Amino acid sequence: MKLLRYGAPGAEKPGLLHDGAIRDLSGIVPDIAGDAIGPEGIAKIAATDPTTLPLVDGDPRLGPCVAGTGKFICIGLNYSDHAAETGATVPDEPIIFMKATSAICGPNDPIVIPRNSEKTDWEVELAVIIGKPGKYIAEADAMDHVAGFAVTNDVSERAFQIEREGQWTKGKSCDNFGQIGPWLVTPDEVADVQDLPMWLTVNGESMQNGSTNTMVFGVKYLVSYLSQFMSLQAGDVISTGTPPGVGLGLTPQRYLKPGDVVELGIEGLGAQRQDVVAEA
Amino acid sequence: MKLLRYGAPGAEKPGLLHDGAIRDLSGIVPDIAGDAIGPEGIAKIAATDPTTLPLVDGDPRLGPCVAGTGKFICIGLNYSDHAAETGATVPDEPIIFMKATSAICGPNDPIVIPRNSEKTDWEVELAVIIGKPGKYIAEADAMDHVAGFAVTNDVSERAFQIEREGQWTKGKSCDNFGQIGPWLVTPDEVADVQDLPMWLTVNGESMQNGSTNTMVFGVKYLVSYLSQFMSLQAGDVISTGTPPGVGLGLTPQRYLKPGDVVELGIEGLGAQRQDVVAEA
Repeated sequence: MKLLRYGAPGAEKPGLLHDGAIRDLSGIVPDIAGDAIGPEGIAKIAATDPTTLPLVDGDPRLGPCVAGTGKFICIGLNYSDHAAETGATVPDEPIIFMKATSAICGPNDPIVIPRNSEKTDWEVELAVIIGKPGKYIAEADAMDHVAGFAVTNDVSERAFQIEREGQWTKGKSCDNFGQIGPWLVTPDEVADVQDLPMWLTVNGESMQNGSTNTMVFGVKYLVSYLSQFMSLQAGDVISTGTPPGVGLGLTPQRYLKPGDVVELGIEGLGAQRQDVVAEA
Repeated sequence: MKLLRYGAPGAEKPGLLHDGAIRDLSGIVPDIAGDAIGPEGIAKIAATDPTTLPLVDGDPRLGPCVAGTGKFICIGLNYSDHAAETGATVPDEPIIFMKATSAICGPNDPIVIPRNSEKTDWEVELAVIIGKPGKYIAEADAMDHVAGFAVTNDVSERAFQIEREGQWTKGKSCDNFGQIGPWLVTPDEVADVQDLPMWLTVNGESMQNGSTNTMVFGVKYLVSYLSQFMSLQAGDVISTGTPPGVGLGLTPQRYLKPGDVVELGIEGLGAQRQDVVAEA
């Protein structure tokens, strides 16, 4: 299934993509969040005949495909070819950092360049969305805790991240730095999550072309690993790192400016399109 | 005012401390969260005669004194005497890192030593609780956005934080690593937030004795600074760093073990008491 949220920011309703059209799920679950994306909630949605759900008219804005995210966890330097690109060595174990949950927005919401920014960059990433809470999860049980997958853009301000005193969170947390969606795709629709082509363009020019098959630490390992350090809750998002081709890694480096258009996607998980605008 | 939350974990009700007793605020506000701690919410509570509120019987558990926390932001190395203790130089600008919001618990809830931990440490800190949302806040306006202050224990696993690959969040985010409370104390009850004695003991032995007057970056500056990098929402918690005396800074280093008792407090903001237990 492809689960989504549609409507104005902060007032999204739950929906389901079926035969290319949005069906209204608000009679079945209150939101794509919490218990609704746990095993019982997913089973309840799956047991519903989509053609009995109200068709949504028009082409509404899409919100982030999951709500109630308590943690927006990111994995650093998790693609072997991206690590090589930046001159970094592949880490011995996953690097964890956090994005502010206030950075989360819809898949096609603009990238807002913050004030005093000169180095706003892109990162196409595979997001894992937790459905069933847990901690100390065994790798063999990890997929039981996953509600689904989505595309994220881990937008990053490199000067804030690297040049403004330690800890990456400073360059990762601005508003509209975390597009999530268009859909939460349940695992039954993904044949092999470790073999998904992924791409990103700026103004139509190809910047990132990679595949989840070069991830250093795979999805099951990451869910298990993270759960050794913190409990995971329904709605938590794990963004699993980016393949080569970010602006920081180019020669010369290249960053976003107002008027640019960023498009990105992962095979089977849909695509995003963002206008780049300046902070008001 | 001293605002608090009492009752079982996840089912806390809002309360007010008055003349040493808890009064039930649930007829006035739904929780100590969101709009209730914005300027209008605080004014509404302040306009209520406490003696008209139901008295709460007995000695209920206290929950974290604020709910709906979207971001649990911490400032690193923010006491000049603590920086000296660890051999670090005072940073040129604030170091920001995040704790998982799932680490938040009540002021007297146990410190749970995670599995595979050998270096669980303590940190008494002043927390600033945001009431009015904002971004790009001027330092002169910062206090308009503050609902109040509280005591926090920024419990830290030093091996996870320092020895397990970059980014401190890994050692800061375990469950029960963020006691907040007992009370949210509104700014009108705090004469000078930059001159508050603070202390922490382990098994009655004094470990930390400091004052917010050695903070490198003060509360107003921090609120303004953070808001340049991310928007702030009601319920966000900023833990402003710790004075000297953490276990990491001792010779030899000293860490918590099951059976230890940690007590900590800040003048005018109340005290916490935690039993140290092992993860089940």
